[in-house]
Amino acid sequence: MSHELLKTYPVVIELPVAWGEMDALRHVNNIVYFRYFESARMAYFTRLRIWNYMNETGIGPILASTGCKFKLPLVYPDTVSVGTRISEIEADRFVMKYVVVSHQHAKVAAEGEGLVVSYDYRALRKAPLPDEIKTRIEALEKSVESGTPDGG
Amino acid sequence: MSHELLKTYPVVIELPVAWGEMDALRHVNNIVYFRYFESARMAYFTRLRIWNYMNETGIGPILASTGCKFKLPLVYPDTVSVGTRISEIEADRFVMKYVVVSHQHAKVAAEGEGLVVSYDYRALRKAPLPDEIKTRIEALEKSVESGTPDGG
Amino acid sequence: MSHELLKTYPVVIELPVAWGEMDALRHVNNIVYFRYFESARMAYFTRLRIWNYMNETGIGPILASTGCKFKLPLVYPDTVSVGTRISEIEADRFVMKYVVVSHQHAKVAAEGEGLVVSYDYRALRKAPLPDEIKTRIEALEKSVESGTPDGG
Amino acid sequence: MSHELLKTYPVVIELPVAWGEMDALRHVNNIVYFRYFESARMAYFTRLRIWNYMNETGIGPILASTGCKFKLPLVYPDTVSVGTRISEIEADRFVMKYVVVSHQHAKVAAEGEGLVVSYDYRALRKAPLPDEIKTRIEALEKSVESGTPDGG
Repeated sequence: MSHELLKTYPVVIELPVAWGEMDALRHVNNIVYFRYFESARMAYFTRLRIWNYMNETGIGPILASTGCKFKLPLVYPDTVSVGTRISEIEADRFVMKYVVVSHQHAKVAAEGEGLVVSYDYRALRKAPLPDEIKTRIEALEKSVESGTPDGG
Repeated sequence: MSHELLKTYPVVIELPVAWGEMDALRHVNNIVYFRYFESARMAYFTRLRIWNYMNETGIGPILASTGCKFKLPLVYPDTVSVGTRISEIEADRFVMKYVVVSHQHAKVAAEGEGLVVSYDYRALRKAPLPDEIKTRIEALEKSVESGTPDGG
Repeated sequence: MSHELLKTYPVVIELPVAWGEMDALRHVNNIVYFRYFESARMAYFTRLRIWNYMNETGIGPILASTGCKFKLPLVYPDTVSVGTRISEIEADRFVMKYVVVSHQHAKVAAEGEGLVVSYDYRALRKAPLPDEIKTRIEALEKSVESGTPDGG
Repeated sequence: MSHELLKTYPVVIELPVAWGEMDALRHVNNIVYFRYFESARMAYFTRLRIWNYMNETGIGPILASTGCKFKLPLVYPDTVSVGTRISEIEADRFVMKYVVVSHQHAKVAAEGEGLVVSYDYRALRKAPLPDEIKTRIEALEKSVESGTPDGG
């Protein structure tokens, strides 16, 4: 789904809504949206080749906090597109934004964000965000801007 | 994925493997295969228009038992195709067969089955499988056989 | 577990950590915390007899947003106590606070909150929070304060 | 819960039914029963100190197949007791039996079984079940029999 609602997100994944993810209120259960966010985050990290970097250096991402605003209940059958972008980069952390778009409704079903901290898994403490990762994030984010008419 | 391994299954769905569905052994957790089966079952039921029938008559399917044989561990990233067919029809029940095929390996990751009983949700007791549903099942199953070279 | 960390929470539930809820990083997966919050929320709603009220009037709670700060990774085997309280009541909504305490560590593993909106499920729109529910919330919250030395 | 229905099971765990584990049919979703079985299996393995053995030798259990018969739908709120026993031991495998008892109904909600194969995680192939583990299983199973009148 290539949609106006997703055009500022450099990484977009598509996921089918599973019948069994609806709860007794007959809507997709609230925890499933965080699974959507996680899958989108992992797709973004793959684009950054962050796991290779982590295997070599021991420095990788850790989710410090996350949140979701529910806009529209999701119901089976449907497919969602989940867009992700990184909106703020600081010395040892960045903020990811998520949007969940329902194909049935062509509307935003939920918006979320996550704070990801750079962590040294060998030293067991926070670590500065490596320059290499920061550069890759900036390049990936720029790919979206340059795709818009007034990009550049 | 149109694969030899799936050709006897009239209903096939594709599902992405989610990173968060792996457990501490770094394989897709065993309960996730039953979610795959459920999603495949629901896709098959949709093809039978079983929910409309249930809304009109109160007679619908209930899962009486299910099982799975694990053949190959699944790991993120991967996509699975899940095929479903109905192998035995009796007066008040039928047996569904499931197969999970890993795209990464082009191999069967798991095989399963489910016993589905026809249930009168208004009278709260087992009910004969309606002829109409039985006819639809037979037509759907035949669609696969006739698709094979020596079909019919 | 009757713990200092939980004493300001009028509703506390205990939940075992399931092995299968750990992910490939060998910590309890982030979405599980939102299941903990949900279970705590339902326990609180039960104490308010909110479901009876909803059946009679059609007015009930809807989760508008939720978030979690992760403080300490959880690992199987462990048991968590999840405390809930309502911190702010407005005309048509209230804010719930959650705390997850690990028994292994006797420390806070996570803190969260949820914004719950009063919804008329018959008219399909927001509704004022019924006085009766507001009174029950205040009584339940007061039960904790009066348990403290300077309570009341 | 110390119940007649559980008395032949040497390992019994108690788990609360979570509201969010009910699906759109307002019963606990079928995949949750396999989570119950898994939690029971892990509790049994802990009693066998199987993980220590695995860390030392590389030989551990792997789930080859599992199945469940659903007897009674579970509904929130409820608590289940899940009993586990090992019913058959062969050279390189054993069969576990599970029973799920609803406290609300004091009845069996489901019965299941799992085939567990002994696996050499270093050599990546099946391995004979170590005598030490076999002896521990027999001792644990005997603990139940000796609790019955004609035990011994």
